[in-house]
Amino acid sequence: MRIGGLSTATGVPVATLKYYLREGLLHAGRATAVNQADYDESHVRRVRLVRSLLELGRLSIAEVADVLAAADDPEVPIHTAFGHAQDAMAPEVAEAHRDDPRFAVARTVVDRFVERNDLRLRPEARVCDMLAEALVLLAEFGLTRLDEPDPIGEAQFDAYAAFFRASAAGDLACVPDTDRIQQVEYTVVGTVAVEAAINAIRRMALEDASERRFGAG
Amino acid sequence: MRIGGLSTATGVPVATLKYYLREGLLHAGRATAVNQADYDESHVRRVRLVRSLLELGRLSIAEVADVLAAADDPEVPIHTAFGHAQDAMAPEVAEAHRDDPRFAVARTVVDRFVERNDLRLRPEARVCDMLAEALVLLAEFGLTRLDEPDPIGEAQFDAYAAFFRASAAGDLACVPDTDRIQQVEYTVVGTVAVEAAINAIRRMALEDASERRFGAG
Repeated sequence: MRIGGLSTATGVPVATLKYYLREGLLHAGRATAVNQADYDESHVRRVRLVRSLLELGRLSIAEVADVLAAADDPEVPIHTAFGHAQDAMAPEVAEAHRDDPRFAVARTVVDRFVERNDLRLRPEARVCDMLAEALVLLAEFGLTRLDEPDPIGEAQFDAYAAFFRASAAGDLACVPDTDRIQQVEYTVVGTVAVEAAINAIRRMALEDASERRFGAG
Repeated sequence: MRIGGLSTATGVPVATLKYYLREGLLHAGRATAVNQADYDESHVRRVRLVRSLLELGRLSIAEVADVLAAADDPEVPIHTAFGHAQDAMAPEVAEAHRDDPRFAVARTVVDRFVERNDLRLRPEARVCDMLAEALVLLAEFGLTRLDEPDPIGEAQFDAYAAFFRASAAGDLACVPDTDRIQQVEYTVVGTVAVEAAINAIRRMALEDASERRFGAG
């Protein structure tokens, strides 16, 4: 199909598709003439992947490019690409927190959590900062404490770890052994879309609990 | 403190603070002279709340304003404000999905899920669209099926519901009965920061599973 057909198939304007091509979010089509290229089903799927990262994952264009860069390189082992994508999806640590002594304390709490739960993470995994930042925020608003062992928070976090470890191997089971394009799709969609689903279900449980405690009827 | 002091206390530039004041994200200080106002601890906390919604929650300025608008009105019952904040935090359904017949199918799957798990939600709760959109995406990439009853997906989703319902009442237990400002803080931080923590822990579990399946050592 021509670029107009790709636009119709994905609902994404031609100008936006050209922007994705320029930024490397979308692989080039097969050139058929000067200034003309042919696109196929692989382009349709990639555009949908990009949209899902932008919309459901709320990533920026630069972050999407970063997620896909390592994922697309067949020379990079899949586990390395997975880690790179995970890092690119983690929000930047807020400027104000980087020098906050509480952030350093929170990082030691996270390191203990990782150790205690025998989670095999790269030492530089940015997801550790993401958890530390959430902890700083929770502590700031009195929802957890960092200044002393916090049995309630630790038990709850360990319960999350046990729960998600139980499903993680299953989540990864559908990732194929060799097809790199499918590996990338499953990894990214499995992180972003399942996460959105989980967040939605947790919010439903919170609204339900709020209705039962504060609701009129 | 003057606005410069508020800037120092929060690490947010004065120009940004003035922008928050104009957009109604931050309540006015106590006027002490023409063009001069005094800010206190309540302003520091509010700025931190706004930053956490923007950075960790990845909301837009307009969404943050929307979350806080209902939450701040003491005439609005807390459960209503909670629902409003939840709606404002849910991502918009992508244009391309609104007329997609699969989205309508996914909504019926979500309605059955809500019914089956006896979740008390407002019929218009946007979180239902959020879950439906995640389902469409999962189906699009072959990670779930919408065209027939899907026992695997349903069992997994019911497990998430049971897990989060078990902790939701506890999460809400620290919300005070009357102090409206604290109610708002706990509700918003409890949603955004706990969600970030949960997502981080799930990603850690996935990286761990990837290491065990694909890792070199």
